[in-house]
Amino acid sequence: MALIVQKFGGTSVGSIERIQQIAKKIKTFKEAGHDLVIVVSAMSGETNRLLGLAKQMSVKPNLRELDVMVSTGEQVTIALLAIALNDLGVAARSYTGGQVRIVTDSVHTKARILHIDDQRIRADLKANSVVIVAGFQGIDEEGNITTLGRGGSDTTGVALAAALKADECQIYTDVDGVYTTDPRVEPKARRLDKITFEEMLEMASLGSKVLQIRSVEFAGKYNVPLRVLHSFKEGPGTLITIDEEVSMEQPIISGIAFSRDEAKLTIRGVPDTPGVASNILGPISNANIEVDMIIQNISQDKTTDFTFTVSRSDYQMAFDILKETASKISAKEVAGNLDIAKVSLVGVGMRSHAGVASRMFGVLAKEGINILMISTSEIKISVLIEEKYLELAVRSLHKAFELDVPDKTLG
Amino acid sequence: MALIVQKFGGTSVGSIERIQQIAKKIKTFKEAGHDLVIVVSAMSGETNRLLGLAKQMSVKPNLRELDVMVSTGEQVTIALLAIALNDLGVAARSYTGGQVRIVTDSVHTKARILHIDDQRIRADLKANSVVIVAGFQGIDEEGNITTLGRGGSDTTGVALAAALKADECQIYTDVDGVYTTDPRVEPKARRLDKITFEEMLEMASLGSKVLQIRSVEFAGKYNVPLRVLHSFKEGPGTLITIDEEVSMEQPIISGIAFSRDEAKLTIRGVPDTPGVASNILGPISNANIEVDMIIQNISQDKTTDFTFTVSRSDYQMAFDILKETASKISAKEVAGNLDIAKVSLVGVGMRSHAGVASRMFGVLAKEGINILMISTSEIKISVLIEEKYLELAVRSLHKAFELDVPDKTLG
Repeated sequence: MALIVQKFGGTSVGSIERIQQIAKKIKTFKEAGHDLVIVVSAMSGETNRLLGLAKQMSVKPNLRELDVMVSTGEQVTIALLAIALNDLGVAARSYTGGQVRIVTDSVHTKARILHIDDQRIRADLKANSVVIVAGFQGIDEEGNITTLGRGGSDTTGVALAAALKADECQIYTDVDGVYTTDPRVEPKARRLDKITFEEMLEMASLGSKVLQIRSVEFAGKYNVPLRVLHSFKEGPGTLITIDEEVSMEQPIISGIAFSRDEAKLTIRGVPDTPGVASNILGPISNANIEVDMIIQNISQDKTTDFTFTVSRSDYQMAFDILKETASKISAKEVAGNLDIAKVSLVGVGMRSHAGVASRMFGVLAKEGINILMISTSEIKISVLIEEKYLELAVRSLHKAFELDVPDKTLG
Repeated sequence: MALIVQKFGGTSVGSIERIQQIAKKIKTFKEAGHDLVIVVSAMSGETNRLLGLAKQMSVKPNLRELDVMVSTGEQVTIALLAIALNDLGVAARSYTGGQVRIVTDSVHTKARILHIDDQRIRADLKANSVVIVAGFQGIDEEGNITTLGRGGSDTTGVALAAALKADECQIYTDVDGVYTTDPRVEPKARRLDKITFEEMLEMASLGSKVLQIRSVEFAGKYNVPLRVLHSFKEGPGTLITIDEEVSMEQPIISGIAFSRDEAKLTIRGVPDTPGVASNILGPISNANIEVDMIIQNISQDKTTDFTFTVSRSDYQMAFDILKETASKISAKEVAGNLDIAKVSLVGVGMRSHAGVASRMFGVLAKEGINILMISTSEIKISVLIEEKYLELAVRSLHKAFELDVPDKTLG
């Protein structure tokens, strides 16, 4: 018997039939003797419908009122799920964020949770009731309705699990766990039983869309065991937990993330003077463009070549800014490239294993794949390559690091 | 400069365009210097859509959860109206019933208001903001969401006006006031400038659908001047107020109400023993059927004929119950009639004027209309007639009591 927080996303509660299926699932858990707190999102499409209404009303809707409006999406779902559970003979009570008192700051549409009152929930759990909480929303200290921003329901789940010291926070979604890489690229990709918070964060920030980064950060910070599972298929899913709990026989590499949303910009022949990097990157960051990888090469003629990557959607703006900078600082030329991609190896195992990078480069070299840029962290190595080699790179690395072999210990 | 509570119903806020029109109207009032509290219903059709979802989920949805669900309808409207007003440069803040703290009892789907916290609203009004409140909803002492039942938004408006001691509560609707009778039956029907709470209550309970009975009772109890106006047409509407404020030159009759929702049942040849009325009506009221008019005649043969009226929807059930009763108490026969209607004269003026009834009967007799039953109260006379004479009766009474003549003083 455990206290479990379960979060179901918009597609999992996207229709009356699906909510009924979820209700049956919850009933099974309840009958197994668990205390359950359920967090749900708005039915899929509902948040966009509400935002659409607001946009029809005003090009720039008042944000306080937008939160009042959009928060109704989850409120409908909590009520429907509670109706379904009561109909199945399972006592259930629903609460909005404001009713629980999920207290946030006052930054409307992207508020952050400050604290959660657990009294009502504990009282209901004690009375053997399933508690259903609207995800994505809260109230500020003055009682104004706030929302946590897109994907905020995951954060609600994790924050509730932390506040209640739950045994596990289960995130139900449309995949059955976290994979070694995207199965659409490498059919031999394998579901991981466990992964650390750090690895999950790297995977998420590198383009693996299973979980919201904020909720993983939150879970890591408060050490809430997080499990990703499929809403409508049986299976253990993937447990995201702290380092020590992941098997000692941890492989070097846990997964391969990749991203096509990469664009490369180069400014060449920059006179090499102090402060050149900030002269170049200052205007870029002033335009709210995030820079990922950066390289600076010093040429023989005492000028510098400076290369960095941005999201594809920021490419044109970054290019124009760079052109302007080039003429100001008398640089020779500006070049850009959109046909690139990033491939990353992620694993806490690489901390204690030298040579992961050289092995990675060797694998890519053998396939004739040229590495354009490299960046590393303690548990990640990313390389930028030509986009056309992306699938080949992922598959050959997946094989070389034996990610397709269950429980294989490398090192 | 006054403090005005304005209530707009579902059709008045039924689309983005209509909400924008309402916002412009409110802006004009605001610019005239008034303090404004606006109460809105759900957009027309929305409450039924939400109820439909709940019914799809369960034949008998949990009532607490039904309230959580249905209350989102008004929450969307308050946000949209606040967005529209802010977009017009008018500061406006929206509140759910729970946020205001409109505290009700815990009878879900038909809660009654216990008290209202006015702090938030007063603070916003002081800050020169328009306050928008979701109609139809509140919270109980435990913080559970409740709803006041259909039409409850009128009640919210009146209750807020009472709590804030507002100068007037304006109910905007799709008619431009209260009429001497239904203009579809008598084209010469005239809008009344003023009417008393008592008269309005009689008119409402007799089938005039302009206002919810509960809200009129509430307004009368707390002496809140109530005004009925058209949402999209200019005009003074009809003021509903206390007796003394209605002109001394009050006509005897203020209006003629009528109802086709009448059915008559007769049980004949009942042995005349003590308790016969309760033997007959007891089973009827046990079946939750409301009885309106009642007549008992004693025949020469010492048996009793007993006649009463019910709503048409209750007719068949009442007939079946009566048949059963008839055999139990050895009555001779049971007869029924659905082709009847009720016409009522309403006016506080008749208190001080004898002879209204005889004059009414005279008018009907002259038209050859037979009176089947009669019931009276201090400010009302109702007669039951054959339905085919309904329009003729209304028109001839309207003319005879000179209701088509503006400011005509009779007596």
